[in-house]
Amino acid sequence: MSADWFRRRFLPGGPLPAPGPPRPRPRPRCSPVPYRRPRFLRGSSSSPSAADASRRPDARPVRSPARGRALPWNAGYAEIINAEKSEFNEDQAACGKLCIRRYEFGVEEDQEWLTLCPEEFLTGHYWALFDGHGGPAAAILAANTLHSCLRRQLEAVVEGMVATQPPMHLSGHCVCPSDPQFVEEKGIRAEDLVIGALESAFQECDEVIGRELEASGQAGGCTALVAMSLQGKLYVANAGDSRAILVRRNEVRPLSSEFTPETERQRIQQLAFVYPELLAGEFTRLEFPRRLKGDDLGQKVLFRDHHMSGWSYKCVEKSDLKYPLIHGQGRQARLLGTLAVSRGLGDHQLRVLDTNIQLKPFLLSVPQVTVLDVDQLEPQEDDLVVMATDGLWDVLSNEQVARLVRSFLPGNQEDPHRFSELAQMLIHSTQGKDDNPTQEGQVSYDDISVFVIPLHSQHQGRSSH
Amino acid sequence: MSADWFRRRFLPGGPLPAPGPPRPRPRPRCSPVPYRRPRFLRGSSSSPSAADASRRPDARPVRSPARGRALPWNAGYAEIINAEKSEFNEDQAACGKLCIRRYEFGVEEDQEWLTLCPEEFLTGHYWALFDGHGGPAAAILAANTLHSCLRRQLEAVVEGMVATQPPMHLSGHCVCPSDPQFVEEKGIRAEDLVIGALESAFQECDEVIGRELEASGQAGGCTALVAMSLQGKLYVANAGDSRAILVRRNEVRPLSSEFTPETERQRIQQLAFVYPELLAGEFTRLEFPRRLKGDDLGQKVLFRDHHMSGWSYKCVEKSDLKYPLIHGQGRQARLLGTLAVSRGLGDHQLRVLDTNIQLKPFLLSVPQVTVLDVDQLEPQEDDLVVMATDGLWDVLSNEQVARLVRSFLPGNQEDPHRFSELAQMLIHSTQGKDDNPTQEGQVSYDDISVFVIPLHSQHQGRSSH
Repeated sequence: MSADWFRRRFLPGGPLPAPGPPRPRPRPRCSPVPYRRPRFLRGSSSSPSAADASRRPDARPVRSPARGRALPWNAGYAEIINAEKSEFNEDQAACGKLCIRRYEFGVEEDQEWLTLCPEEFLTGHYWALFDGHGGPAAAILAANTLHSCLRRQLEAVVEGMVATQPPMHLSGHCVCPSDPQFVEEKGIRAEDLVIGALESAFQECDEVIGRELEASGQAGGCTALVAMSLQGKLYVANAGDSRAILVRRNEVRPLSSEFTPETERQRIQQLAFVYPELLAGEFTRLEFPRRLKGDDLGQKVLFRDHHMSGWSYKCVEKSDLKYPLIHGQGRQARLLGTLAVSRGLGDHQLRVLDTNIQLKPFLLSVPQVTVLDVDQLEPQEDDLVVMATDGLWDVLSNEQVARLVRSFLPGNQEDPHRFSELAQMLIHSTQGKDDNPTQEGQVSYDDISVFVIPLHSQHQGRSSH
Repeated sequence: MSADWFRRRFLPGGPLPAPGPPRPRPRPRCSPVPYRRPRFLRGSSSSPSAADASRRPDARPVRSPARGRALPWNAGYAEIINAEKSEFNEDQAACGKLCIRRYEFGVEEDQEWLTLCPEEFLTGHYWALFDGHGGPAAAILAANTLHSCLRRQLEAVVEGMVATQPPMHLSGHCVCPSDPQFVEEKGIRAEDLVIGALESAFQECDEVIGRELEASGQAGGCTALVAMSLQGKLYVANAGDSRAILVRRNEVRPLSSEFTPETERQRIQQLAFVYPELLAGEFTRLEFPRRLKGDDLGQKVLFRDHHMSGWSYKCVEKSDLKYPLIHGQGRQARLLGTLAVSRGLGDHQLRVLDTNIQLKPFLLSVPQVTVLDVDQLEPQEDDLVVMATDGLWDVLSNEQVARLVRSFLPGNQEDPHRFSELAQMLIHSTQGKDDNPTQEGQVSYDDISVFVIPLHSQHQGRSSH
């Protein structure tokens, strides 16, 4: 991606059609992509949940993989799909084994290679959740594509990853005798190459989605949360508002942060500051506690600009009455009145309704990556990672999820399907009082997908992989 | 600051003169500002330190305020000035009482006001360290100016600060009945106005310094680290590579982070990505473990771009051989081959040697602000804050400083001058083995200034202020 490209793509010189006022959300377009669920749900039936027979007329089934169909690391999975929310389901999931092949020095990737070197070299595992918006197309493409991008990016650097220290030159050839020292001083470790590969894979996948959507005349975007195990570590890469946490007997640790117009306010305002053209004179970059109106003119009101963490007062001018670049609080916060997340894949053509104003320049496809050293952690029985889309976290806090996990597991030690049962139980906890062990009565009406990844047995058995 | 201004200021259209290769540091210009030390050092004499008589021929005196001259909160101070480093000392310090007056609603700031409302309304205290570069002028101007900017910014919002919740309108007039609810939902508290005032004060001071330096034909910049007590809280605002820590019996807590080309790499590379003109074709935005040379051409080497936290490999092209935007590691890291910090005040005219390439667009004057709730902390005897310029932290870790503090204080309970003695002792610990209680033998050849701010007595006596 070059700056020229950025300018050509997002800073057209021509005049824009006069836009109307933005609305909170664009109506999702129908997608020609057929409704589909993750492959690993084949053969599953809906969970006979208490909710189905409960007072709620809109009770929806919770689905998990069929008993006997094991996911990587014996992970559990469950989902609930809100068929009312949009014509097609927008959450998607994927998981599987990642086989990283090794490139011989000097051998280019070609068909012959498969014959010469058929053995995989490193094995990882991969779990991913994609929460779509504006149709399911981007989420489905991401579920089909991201793991291939990731494998390709890892294979491109695997020689560096398996060295004691990543070499300055991928070929291993040493141009300058102190190269190892330079690399050492920068503190570059093998895991930095995996982080770099994850970052590149998300971007590559975003480009693939952009091309595919354009070619097929579809639209939409999705968040992406990936957990990947490799060489004794678990890498959690997040672009969007899904979340992963580590739950242990005496510890709850976030493994990701959310990226929303609120959490990335300063980055987004900063871009509007350096490229005001992106707002086409229709939005104000400043943040106010509420949208301003005529009565506020001339008054000193609370505001924040891109360089501010704190708040100050400014005298309201006419341009401050424009619709704000970021507006609303918490779950209601929207970028350009349109989007609730600030990182993810897709959305290449997304525009503010009835305008030419694009959202893509404000979005990042690059994830934040957290590394959990599973070997060093020495995980105990029942230590696990819970990853879920925002529908779960809107209703349950990290601590509530941890309490539910700890109360569920001891009674279910023998059930091989227990992690999917646990994932189902977490979802049921979001479906209203009758079915809610937390008794807090909050209800999620969003799609929810949950992976539960146990850490203990893998740590024990890692040498066999 | 508007985007137009930014472009006019930093993106000149004309051709640039062909630059030579940048050198690590520009030679500091001599400054017409006379050598001066903080006012509160008047009457002090050099500390009769063991170092003075030690093996080191370049031993320099450590200075503290005269006995009997109390600083706010009975804080301690000491400094050591490396006269060899530059013609004029470049560290400066300031401290004092901050008297915040209250504006009556509807009364504009004018001369009459002082008569109508002579009483101060809120009292705070202020301690600040400025570490200059390229001459002492910016540091001296900052030491003379920043507290006035801060008082002015606080007075502009003080009505909002003292309300239970900052009102949407500074006048207190409620335009919309749910305004308090909007402010509540955004979670805006009085301390956010103080943070905003600190952010604005640093920027205002930076503008003052820019004007003064230009008017007097001087140059230079400085870092700024400020601690300010107000309404039971201690605000620590930092722009640069100085540091403040809280030391308690069982806790060491950083109260600031450093801002250097290394810690702000992604922000700086991002700016060069959106405005490549800022590099005038002379620098590469990419980071490599070392500067590349002809032999690297065509090889795949380790690199990082603005969107990457991890590392990857890229095939070296000719443009990658340019001097890197950020180069070197740790203390040696430089922005555009010139500057070791990425936030601070001044440097408005600073250019890469023999070129027209400006550094200012890459620098931020806005500080990061940390809030310590001193009342809630219930500080114990000997709980204190240590703030010091980078010369101290280059040689001593937070934990080492905490150990030195804990070993010094118990034997010196009765000495009213003990916090200055402690500050001196910390500096002596950086001056080589003979005089170094840590016995680790690391030596700092940089200027060092240290404030030691005790928290206990203030907490006890706050209601009297």
